[in-house]
Amino acid sequence: MKIREIAEFLDAELVGDASVEIIGVASVASASTGEIAFLEKNIGQVASRADCLIVPADFDGETPIPLIKTANPKLAFARVAAILHPQKRKQSGIDASAVIAETAAIGSGVFVDAFVSVGNDSAIGSGTYLLAGTKIGDGVMIGKNCFLHPNVVIQDGCLIGNDVILHSGAVVGADGFGYVRDAQKYVKFPQIGVVVIEDDVEIGANSCIDRGSLGETRIGKGTKIDNLVQIAHNVQIGERVIIAAQTGISGSTVVEDDCVIGGQVGMGDHALVKSGAIIGSQAGVLPGKIVRPGVWWGTPVQPLSEYKRQNAHVKSLQRLKDDVIEIKKLMKK
Amino acid sequence: MKIREIAEFLDAELVGDASVEIIGVASVASASTGEIAFLEKNIGQVASRADCLIVPADFDGETPIPLIKTANPKLAFARVAAILHPQKRKQSGIDASAVIAETAAIGSGVFVDAFVSVGNDSAIGSGTYLLAGTKIGDGVMIGKNCFLHPNVVIQDGCLIGNDVILHSGAVVGADGFGYVRDAQKYVKFPQIGVVVIEDDVEIGANSCIDRGSLGETRIGKGTKIDNLVQIAHNVQIGERVIIAAQTGISGSTVVEDDCVIGGQVGMGDHALVKSGAIIGSQAGVLPGKIVRPGVWWGTPVQPLSEYKRQNAHVKSLQRLKDDVIEIKKLMKK
Amino acid sequence: MKIREIAEFLDAELVGDASVEIIGVASVASASTGEIAFLEKNIGQVASRADCLIVPADFDGETPIPLIKTANPKLAFARVAAILHPQKRKQSGIDASAVIAETAAIGSGVFVDAFVSVGNDSAIGSGTYLLAGTKIGDGVMIGKNCFLHPNVVIQDGCLIGNDVILHSGAVVGADGFGYVRDAQKYVKFPQIGVVVIEDDVEIGANSCIDRGSLGETRIGKGTKIDNLVQIAHNVQIGERVIIAAQTGISGSTVVEDDCVIGGQVGMGDHALVKSGAIIGSQAGVLPGKIVRPGVWWGTPVQPLSEYKRQNAHVKSLQRLKDDVIEIKKLMKK
Repeated sequence: MKIREIAEFLDAELVGDASVEIIGVASVASASTGEIAFLEKNIGQVASRADCLIVPADFDGETPIPLIKTANPKLAFARVAAILHPQKRKQSGIDASAVIAETAAIGSGVFVDAFVSVGNDSAIGSGTYLLAGTKIGDGVMIGKNCFLHPNVVIQDGCLIGNDVILHSGAVVGADGFGYVRDAQKYVKFPQIGVVVIEDDVEIGANSCIDRGSLGETRIGKGTKIDNLVQIAHNVQIGERVIIAAQTGISGSTVVEDDCVIGGQVGMGDHALVKSGAIIGSQAGVLPGKIVRPGVWWGTPVQPLSEYKRQNAHVKSLQRLKDDVIEIKKLMKK
Repeated sequence: MKIREIAEFLDAELVGDASVEIIGVASVASASTGEIAFLEKNIGQVASRADCLIVPADFDGETPIPLIKTANPKLAFARVAAILHPQKRKQSGIDASAVIAETAAIGSGVFVDAFVSVGNDSAIGSGTYLLAGTKIGDGVMIGKNCFLHPNVVIQDGCLIGNDVILHSGAVVGADGFGYVRDAQKYVKFPQIGVVVIEDDVEIGANSCIDRGSLGETRIGKGTKIDNLVQIAHNVQIGERVIIAAQTGISGSTVVEDDCVIGGQVGMGDHALVKSGAIIGSQAGVLPGKIVRPGVWWGTPVQPLSEYKRQNAHVKSLQRLKDDVIEIKKLMKK
Repeated sequence: MKIREIAEFLDAELVGDASVEIIGVASVASASTGEIAFLEKNIGQVASRADCLIVPADFDGETPIPLIKTANPKLAFARVAAILHPQKRKQSGIDASAVIAETAAIGSGVFVDAFVSVGNDSAIGSGTYLLAGTKIGDGVMIGKNCFLHPNVVIQDGCLIGNDVILHSGAVVGADGFGYVRDAQKYVKFPQIGVVVIEDDVEIGANSCIDRGSLGETRIGKGTKIDNLVQIAHNVQIGERVIIAAQTGISGSTVVEDDCVIGGQVGMGDHALVKSGAIIGSQAGVLPGKIVRPGVWWGTPVQPLSEYKRQNAHVKSLQRLKDDVIEIKKLMKK
């Protein structure tokens, strides 16, 4: 892809030699011949061996490197990378070792790798990849152009949209965690719902999305979930939500559209996180809590400004204590 | 199952038409024809399209829906659900793709799915299900009527009781995390013990139960463990313990019977959690700590009442600080 | 192995009958005939049915049990255990069910278990074990004498050194978690780097090591990582680092040599943990933070002494408040 073509694809201003061929992306520091890199901010001078740089519109550094100027260089870079480094495609077909139920429907252009199993009455949409060791239960519907990495498990009855990426070891549709205490033991509460994953969702390695107990657990369109995340039964995650690694969300909690949840956050059950809320890492949301738009941190979560003020108070406790001791001394005189 | 049969099975009072056929359970909101739902509390009026409701004994709402009155409706509902929605059974037998050691003993009525492997001298009890991709090591004993979901791993020498449910990706018997620091490097401490899982235990998806280093790690009868939980070497978990998702318990810690442990709790090594203790989510138990019966929260854990009082103090620090400033002003006059 | 041979191997002082045959290791409490145990400290009297005890050089208890005296009994015990309980070896060879690409190179003495797949242009070093269900992508290099437990996943292009142990369900080389927000959705940032795992590393069950986005994620020589740990894209972990269970380290963070990181610790991105730092469990390191050598705890992390002092202040807030109330009363008089 020549620099000219890249600039056209991005609909961006080009400065310098447009004829150079670009074959890959790299960071500014590591890029070399044939590679394109990006600068997020106008840092003036830049030293790089890249053959092209995507820079902010206000970039004013002097460099012999051909430049593509655009409002959001990181976004432009990601879009170029998607073209220069497409998901590796394998020849479609079903590996001889795979075990596919007779009643399963496999679409056109599907790639089924070694040791994949697909259960009864399941359907795999066209262009979807099931990598080695993926296990698909009965009655599972998977859309088009999905990519299931090795050893993903999708359990009975779960529904996966189009363009979904599931990373290795992710488990979709395990039973929720619900019991009723009897005199002598815990009796399992029914876990007979499903998981619905909408289009364009990505779920990280070894993350778990439990099925609804009596209804569905739902992950909204375009939501991105990192590794080792726990989503409990009947949780409803909206669209374009970001959830970082090792966060856990308890039963029936709702996270609305466009929230950003840090890593290792814990949420109790039946909480409601309103659209646009941002929750810092390791925060704790109490059961039933309503978290309004804004930035939140701490356990239990507070608005970030309050959390910071409170932290400052705690840090200055020695001084406060000293003041009180001094006052007491003065009063004794 | 007719409503009359359900009431008889529950040994509960029946109000209304006992002849309707019930084929499934659902929530009050979503239930429709042929379904039974439950109300946990007497909320007076109820709107539902269920064909039968299980309600508390003191329920006094007026409704045309047939009612079953009982002391614990949720428990009754769970018991009915277990009958109406039994674990899906497959025809017993061994999938052609499975690799079973010649010296392994497979009981009657066992279902062995695709890509299951069973090692030397292992035994699988009658009625047990090994779903796709489950890996059983050497010398493993698994009891009767267990249900191992896809991609579960049981490593050499571990012992699993009867009626145990292991969810996808759970790993039983990985090495514990123990090393001795030499001058130049860490030397692995022996991890040659086993894991013993007693009857009626359920373990969540992608949870890890490490083998004992020189003895055993034990999970007591009727204990329920959620997803992504870490149980370290030589931990002893009692009977009927509840452990929510993403909790981690360090080496040799003991959790006695009937404890309830929230999610994302961390416990140091050699701690002792006494029978009946309840520990809130994200709490931290220091190594060697003894946690007595009662409700605990925070890091390091404190009795809930102390934790709350302390939190209230922290929240009112601004006022305390203002008071001290005011006092200092007055004293200067 | 006779006691004399053990003492010679350890180059340690021997007291008592050197001719007894030792066949295994055990704890002091559980050891019996033919077994050797160890005491970490000189506790005076000792009751054990072991046939030999490894004790500190200053041990002065009276016992008929033959003793081996050494400066570091636990280390000596670990070294003896490694000889008496070697990793179980299986006959090398490739299980008939394995799917190995024609272009893959399998070294001598390699054991490939059932349902293992190895992709194109990958190489497995001599003496390495790939246990059941392990999935090796394309272009993966694995060194000598590694041990990959069941259902490990190594994705395309990752590099594994010699003597590496990967526990069940560990995922090496999943995509990092990086997106750029467009007006309507999140666009995936390229995740085209690799993971490099150096010699003598051990990684716990269900842990995740993400590939670099535009470079590499690296785990240094001799580092030991526990279960359910998350290592994000482009993280650099030094040599001989210990990371306990459920810790998560965000993108591009650097942990230098010889650090010890507790369990459930969270680190933001682009942090730097300097060589020799010790971070307590559940601590939180803010993005970009530099953590100097010493012991740290809390969120955000503070030196342990400060954290403790601060905790003590918070615990005594009731008294401080009472003092202020008392002062106010006195001043009103």
